[in-house]
Amino acid sequence: MREIYFDNAATTRVRPEVSALMQRIMEEDYGNPSARYKKGMEAENLVKEAAARIASTLKVKPNEIVFTSGGTESDNMALVGTALARARRGKHIVSCNIEHAAVYKTMEFLQTLGYEISFVGVDEKGRVKLDELEKAIRPDTILVSIMAVNNEIGSVEPVGEIGRLIKEKNPECYFHTDAIQAYGKLILRPAADRVDLLTMSSHKIHGPKGCGFIYIRDKVHVTPIIYGGGQQHDMRSGTENVPGIAGMGLACEMYYKEHAAIEEKMLAVKGRLYERLNAMEGVKCNSGMGSDFAPHILSASFAGVRAEVLLHALEDKGIYVSSGSACSSNHPAVSGTLRAIGLEKALLDSTLRFSFGIYNEPEEADVCADALQELLPVLRKYQRH
Amino acid sequence: MREIYFDNAATTRVRPEVSALMQRIMEEDYGNPSARYKKGMEAENLVKEAAARIASTLKVKPNEIVFTSGGTESDNMALVGTALARARRGKHIVSCNIEHAAVYKTMEFLQTLGYEISFVGVDEKGRVKLDELEKAIRPDTILVSIMAVNNEIGSVEPVGEIGRLIKEKNPECYFHTDAIQAYGKLILRPAADRVDLLTMSSHKIHGPKGCGFIYIRDKVHVTPIIYGGGQQHDMRSGTENVPGIAGMGLACEMYYKEHAAIEEKMLAVKGRLYERLNAMEGVKCNSGMGSDFAPHILSASFAGVRAEVLLHALEDKGIYVSSGSACSSNHPAVSGTLRAIGLEKALLDSTLRFSFGIYNEPEEADVCADALQELLPVLRKYQRH
Repeated sequence: MREIYFDNAATTRVRPEVSALMQRIMEEDYGNPSARYKKGMEAENLVKEAAARIASTLKVKPNEIVFTSGGTESDNMALVGTALARARRGKHIVSCNIEHAAVYKTMEFLQTLGYEISFVGVDEKGRVKLDELEKAIRPDTILVSIMAVNNEIGSVEPVGEIGRLIKEKNPECYFHTDAIQAYGKLILRPAADRVDLLTMSSHKIHGPKGCGFIYIRDKVHVTPIIYGGGQQHDMRSGTENVPGIAGMGLACEMYYKEHAAIEEKMLAVKGRLYERLNAMEGVKCNSGMGSDFAPHILSASFAGVRAEVLLHALEDKGIYVSSGSACSSNHPAVSGTLRAIGLEKALLDSTLRFSFGIYNEPEEADVCADALQELLPVLRKYQRH
Repeated sequence: MREIYFDNAATTRVRPEVSALMQRIMEEDYGNPSARYKKGMEAENLVKEAAARIASTLKVKPNEIVFTSGGTESDNMALVGTALARARRGKHIVSCNIEHAAVYKTMEFLQTLGYEISFVGVDEKGRVKLDELEKAIRPDTILVSIMAVNNEIGSVEPVGEIGRLIKEKNPECYFHTDAIQAYGKLILRPAADRVDLLTMSSHKIHGPKGCGFIYIRDKVHVTPIIYGGGQQHDMRSGTENVPGIAGMGLACEMYYKEHAAIEEKMLAVKGRLYERLNAMEGVKCNSGMGSDFAPHILSASFAGVRAEVLLHALEDKGIYVSSGSACSSNHPAVSGTLRAIGLEKALLDSTLRFSFGIYNEPEEADVCADALQELLPVLRKYQRH
């Protein structure tokens, strides 16, 4: 049975070019970038090369990239680092109610430290309400954190508009965008969009797990959250994960080199599944096909079927999808995003996320749709009894 | 020219078995451990297997192991996590004056948050003064952090004695030991030694960079320092670095399986170099050969030669060593350890660290000693002019 992996928003298969590069570095170029001899400088150069590759995909400077252990650490650094660095200016932060746990759980931690968080609502497409956002920003607001692409339904937030709005209302307020689902899928220009902090995770774009970065705009001041040997200009201590960083750098470069082709293919997969789902009775797509939604995520609700049951029925056919946000599937709570977009209660627990990567083919959408068409009546009948 | 890599305390070459396992996982078993289908559970099982492998090397329980991005994050979690969890009990912490930057820089951060840190001195072998330690522990002391093996000269601290002493003086006080240079090289029994928190880095024992763990004894309460999806029982959020974790697990298991043979070989390399260095004029070994010192580190001071110059002269002969602690060589400050053991001022900047790994051979010690014997008179003559 051929496997169909439609859970690329949770994690992706590493490109063979990337893992081959990492293996070479692990066994041959294994020096410590801090060491003062050639083997150390070679390792340091691999780190610098990765920073340059990543910076060029965002049109920013290599020294604005700080490597971390992944998207979650990056988000924590953006939030906690800003909060600690700017506590004297204010203790108010604005976010929205469909953020990933790496943001909202960190906000809860900041609340225990005495910070006040305002959460702004979204419309039925998951787009932040700009009028609410404008009202929420105060003179003592030190940070606005709004994701670039939602991880559950793929909504694309108007990052450029948000950036302008923030800086007009309070030029001293920092703007962080969690770009973990956006990087690779969209062309991102943080400098033009007035983004101060942008966070990314490597394993969402066919790079290695355990690696990510945070873009920190020049002159933006955040406090480190991990202390030690002073690596990365004192911003993130700890021996650099050279193979991971180099692997991520290559994955980033390859993704953006092939950006147009990848987008076209993903939209073909998504479009075919979208069309088929819309033709099925009792199925509601929570993601759309336009530019308001990212090309790699398609959320759909199946009336009268529990997501968990449908997920395992698809699994039996070798099709892997996610219920809710897979990143926290160990904590099965009802999705905040689906509630926030006003999905009717009965569908909250009947929603699957299909998400695509570079290895998916449009034909897989047909196989998946056929499977759903076969399964849905059976499961609905079963569930009724 | 054959390379001689004598900087294994800085970082090590990854074992081919480990990188092959990682490559397979990256390309095939790439599921997200949080995903609820088979591919996710397979990934979860790889993480569990690694925890079991590591736990068995320490004779602790797998659920007492939390995976991190490396030794530095582990140290930060032990210190900051304890400080935040126990602030109401007290804000006093005890450490010693030869800790690695990952500990003492984190202590400096805690000072900015209002914690009081007492630093205990060491003797000429780098062993913590137990009488000073005993006096330093107060009723409001929440944590003692003393490393198991020093990273610059290899001193082995009396972890068992320290554990007993702490618990006698203040049974509620936690004991953290930074075992980054000790893991693999010594048999560690944290439960018997009354260690509550033990931290480790994978890339020091021929495992991958970007990976480490913290042992947190059952019922010991520390606050997470990274928030998000609630992975690892809410202790460390972020998608688990499955290839890195599995690679580290294998590296740990292999190291301890071969422990006796590795130790014997390392002591042969170290012993041969030690003997040759002791026979040279104007050379002083700061590490000894007995059980007071770890088998993989040999620090020596070369009168009348700057460490930096000697390091590069050795590099020209393909021999890689470190001056001071390579982990923070980007910040060339005079070593705290060498000062603390009372090394005479003139030698502080004339000290090299030779450190050994599983791929070193005793013959390499001779090649290195021959090179030193040839270089020292020339460099001394040059330096005098």
